[in-house]
Formats: sequence, structure tokens, C-alpha cells
Amino acid sequence: LIYRGHTIEDLAQGASYEEVLYLLWHGHLPAEDELEEFTEAMADERELDEGVLETVRTLADTDANPMSALQTVVSELAAFDPDADADPTDREANLRKGRRITAKIPTALAAFERARNDDEFVAPREDLGHAANFLYMLNGEEPDEVLAETFDQALVLHVDHGLNASTFAAMVTASTLADVHAATTSAIGALSGSLHGGANQDVMRMLKEVDDSDMEPLEWVETALEEGRRVPGFGHRVYNVKDPRAKILGQRSEALGEAAGDMRWYEMSVTIEEHLMEEKGLAPNVDFYSASTYYQMGIPVDLYTPIFAMSRAGGWIAHVLEQYDD
Amino acid sequence: LIYRGHTIEDLAQGASYEEVLYLLWHGHLPAEDELEEFTEAMADERELDEGVLETVRTLADTDANPMSALQTVVSELAAFDPDADADPTDREANLRKGRRITAKIPTALAAFERARNDDEFVAPREDLGHAANFLYMLNGEEPDEVLAETFDQALVLHVDHGLNASTFAAMVTASTLADVHAATTSAIGALSGSLHGGANQDVMRMLKEVDDSDMEPLEWVETALEEGRRVPGFGHRVYNVKDPRAKILGQRSEALGEAAGDMRWYEMSVTIEEHLMEEKGLAPNVDFYSASTYYQMGIPVDLYTPIFAMSRAGGWIAHVLEQYDD
Repeated sequence: LIYRGHTIEDLAQGASYEEVLYLLWHGHLPAEDELEEFTEAMADERELDEGVLETVRTLADTDANPMSALQTVVSELAAFDPDADADPTDREANLRKGRRITAKIPTALAAFERARNDDEFVAPREDLGHAANFLYMLNGEEPDEVLAETFDQALVLHVDHGLNASTFAAMVTASTLADVHAATTSAIGALSGSLHGGANQDVMRMLKEVDDSDMEPLEWVETALEEGRRVPGFGHRVYNVKDPRAKILGQRSEALGEAAGDMRWYEMSVTIEEHLMEEKGLAPNVDFYSASTYYQMGIPVDLYTPIFAMSRAGGWIAHVLEQYDD
Repeated sequence: LIYRGHTIEDLAQGASYEEVLYLLWHGHLPAEDELEEFTEAMADERELDEGVLETVRTLADTDANPMSALQTVVSELAAFDPDADADPTDREANLRKGRRITAKIPTALAAFERARNDDEFVAPREDLGHAANFLYMLNGEEPDEVLAETFDQALVLHVDHGLNASTFAAMVTASTLADVHAATTSAIGALSGSLHGGANQDVMRMLKEVDDSDMEPLEWVETALEEGRRVPGFGHRVYNVKDPRAKILGQRSEALGEAAGDMRWYEMSVTIEEHLMEEKGLAPNVDFYSASTYYQMGIPVDLYTPIFAMSRAGGWIAHVLEQYDD
């Protein structure tokens, strides 16, 4: 898996989400001053207009599906965008719109999560990175370095994957010269389907079922396969080998377990992985280890797909920019 | 142009929008009792929840682009839908969702138009048909029979056209098992692009430019062609002949001109049509005569594309239902 000539392993190790966004949108990794300017511009765009926050609260009150809520909010952002009337082929305006959408999604999601729990809204902080600021807004306290780095890495790993269904929906929409907001809104819709974005949530529900059962993980997965159950988080249309993102996230899941002194979720995952490979020759995909990683970070299960969208927005916008250019 | 085995000419002449919706969704024209039940069920779903109306007002206050506003509202409808948690392959639930979306779009659009003009919201009436009720909510008074019939016919003519870009966006979105609301939201995004839904608005702006100029229509169009200007509303990817919908809407435009004692918009359109055919061999498409028809009905120009969406929602949903079924 390569973004713009850089392997995912190199980027996950050495680049922040903001750096990778810059790479995807501009074609090269930013120099120090370019990164500083870009990071500041992103941080500057995190606030939501009061009208949008009101919609977020309304959606939280109806207990809306978080993906549906996110789709509504991203569509509504268009109405408040200073470049709303720009020509859809104006590249500079599109970059600004893309930056705003990507900067505001974490604020909207954190606000939604807090509102549905009757917690006070936590305003974004400009001094934190994209990943750390989201965790801060979500939990109301600054994350430690391990959590912030883990989440940043997860965002880097999810930001693009070529021409998947949601990216294609964005491109079909942009093909009529619909604007960046409309294209991103379409993509969120496509990602919301259970055949696309929902798998990491299914993985976590399965891990909890294993944990709640009276069986050992190996016994559980043997029984599940005997009963013909589909085990989520395995196989991929593109990879015949282990998804490179699963390798990195597996290490993160392990480290989080060690830090918490509770290896249950990681070890359960490894047992299931080894059995599926032995019995079915199936390797885990990105969703398999993002599940236990996010769970150990304390992120609510039904936000896993919206977090996927939070990251992937950068990839959608990169493809849409390319499409407008040609 | 044929919907489910019936020519567009027959349907435009003999069937209401509700009958054609039923045809598209169920595969056959409704019997009398089926139509009565369906029409009542549609009329029953016109009201908007207060949360949605609030969003409509917020969007009107920001002077949002009407297509962007419509995309936001249709996405938000999902949160209030009683079948929000239904399985996306539950056909009965999808029919109910499709009915609700199609029934509520006119209310949302009329509310948006009135709110941005600081006019009071006009609640839907259950005793009027789909087309007449929209004009009633838009203008605050019941339309006469000619207006109601003309608008109903325009809705019938726009409801489906096979695999165009917006329908395709709906299908790509639904292909992941995203729900009807998400798919319709994607389609609205695709229709919002100037290469897809915006042409009838461009036609009307051109007709006004002709009217405002010191030139006769023939002189204006000769000059425009000499200057290499693209004349909107001509040519179609599918039709080499005159779009069958343009023929019917042309008659409507003529009748409205006669009723008003002002043939200007119709005659101007005919002059441009004849010249384009003579000089370029180009025939008008549906957008060319819907422009002067809507204008003579007093509909604001930037609502022409949202009205296209109001009608086409029925077609999008028909294709999405088909996609879920197989």
C-alpha cells in the first residue's frame, strides 16, 4: 500500500495525519515551513458555526445513526463555507473547502458524541494536533502521548485506499461538477453501508461476544466456523496476504493491552487470526485490529465507522481534486 | 422514452405523478383502490418534524444554495424516519422510506423558499395532489387547474431517465447496503452539478438575457453562435432527435403564454429552437422548454433544479429498490 510513492509503513512510522493530508493533496511531503502553515490553517478551521452545532444537537436528540448524522452535517457545512459560491474547478477554493471539511468533521463527531450523552460541548484547541485534539474534544481531557500517537497512526492508515466504493461515489458526484461538499457527502453515504465501512464495528461486537461467552476464544471460533458463521474482519478484495495496515494496528493493539495490563482483546484477536489462517487461509484486514485498538482507547463502538470517515475524508478530497483537474 | 412499458406520451397525458410513482415502484399502474391508498399514504407523510424545519430555516438564513440545502434536509430526514433502523434490504420498509422522502421534499423546498423570503411557513394540505400541494405551499394559495396540471405533467416527465449520473450515484451508494436516505442524498449531490441538473436554470437566464437585450431573438441567437457561445438546453447524450419531453413541455409553455396573453417566452424559445436546428442540427432537450414553463408559472429560477430533484427522487428510489432486490 503506497500513497504518492511512499509506503504505508514509512508514513505510519514517520508522518503525522496532517503531513499525509498535505502529501495526498499537493503531491509531495511538506517542507518544515509548508507543514507549519498547513497545520496552523487546519487548526484554525476546527470551529463549527452555531447553526451547525444546533443541527448536531438535534441529531443527537433523535439518537441518529452517527454516519447519517455525519452525512447531514458535512452537507450543511457547505452553507456556511466562505467559498460556497466558488467555481467547482477553482483548485485553491477546493483546497480550502477540503481543509475545512477535514478540520471540522472531528469537532462535529465529538460534539455529537457528547451531546447524546448529555455532556457539555468541548471546544477545539488550536495547540493540539488533529488526532490529539479529537480525543481531547471527545473525552474532555488531553490524551497521553501513546493514545495521541496511536490515533494519529490509525488516521494515517485509513486515509486512502484507491478506488473503493465511497471514493467512487465521491468521483461520480464530482463528475457533474458538483462541489467538494456534495462529493464528500455522497462518499459518507456510501461508506455508511455495512458492506463497506461497518466491518470494524462488527469485529468489536464479535470480540465482546467471545468475551461474554463461557468459551475460550479458540473454542468459540471453532464453533462459529462449524456453524457456518461469517467472521468479520477477514479477507479483502485487493489483498491475498495480511493487510499491511492490520500488521501495524496489531502492534498498536498489543501495546495498548500491555500498557493497560489486560491482554485479553489482543490475545483473543491473535487466536482468531491464527485459526482463520489455518482453517480457511484467510488473513485479517484493517478492520480486524482497528476494532480492539479503538476499543482499548475507549472509543464508542458505533463511532468506529465515523472515525474511518474522519480519516478517509482526506482521501476522498484528494481524488475529487484530481478529478476536477482532469 | 418508456417507463415500465408505458410511453411517456401516454403517461404525461393520462397519469398523475402519484400514479407514475406507483408504476415505477411496483411495476404496474395502480388499480383504483391501490391508487387511493397510495395517494392517501403519500399525503399523510408530507409534514416535517420541527427539527427538520429548524434546519430548513437555518439554511434559508445563510442563503444556502437550494440544492445543497435539499441535500442536507434529505440526509437529516433519516434521523426522524420511523424505519431508520430497518434492514436496508427490507423492501416494505424501503417503500415506506421512499414514500416519506418523496412526500417530504416538496414541503422542505417550499418551506425553504418561503423562509428565505421571510414569508410564513404554509403547512401541507392532505386534500390536494402532490403537484397542486407543492404550488399551494410555495405560493400560499391554491393553484388553478391549469397550473396544477402543468406542474403534475412536468413532474411525470422528469421522474426517470435510466442510468444518468445522479441515479448512478444513488446506485453506487446503495451498493454497499447504505440505506435509501443515504442513496438519495448522494443522488441530489450529483444532480447539483452544472453538467447534470443545472441546464434549465441556464436556459432561463439566457431567455432573460435575450429579453433584456436590444436585439430580436433571431438576431441574438445568430450573434451568440457567431461568438461561439454554447446555447444551453440543446443536444442530449441519448437523443439524436427532439427530446420527447421537450415536445410536451413546449405545448405547455405555449398554453401558458396564451393564457397570460404574453407569447414572448414561448416565441423566443421557438425562434432559438428553429435556428439551432437549421444551423447546427441540434434539437432541444427537456431543459429547454421546462425553463419557460416554470418561469411562466412564477417559480424562482434557482428552484428549477431542486424541482427536478423533487420529481427524480421517485426514479432514484425505484432504481435503488431494484438494486437492493438483486
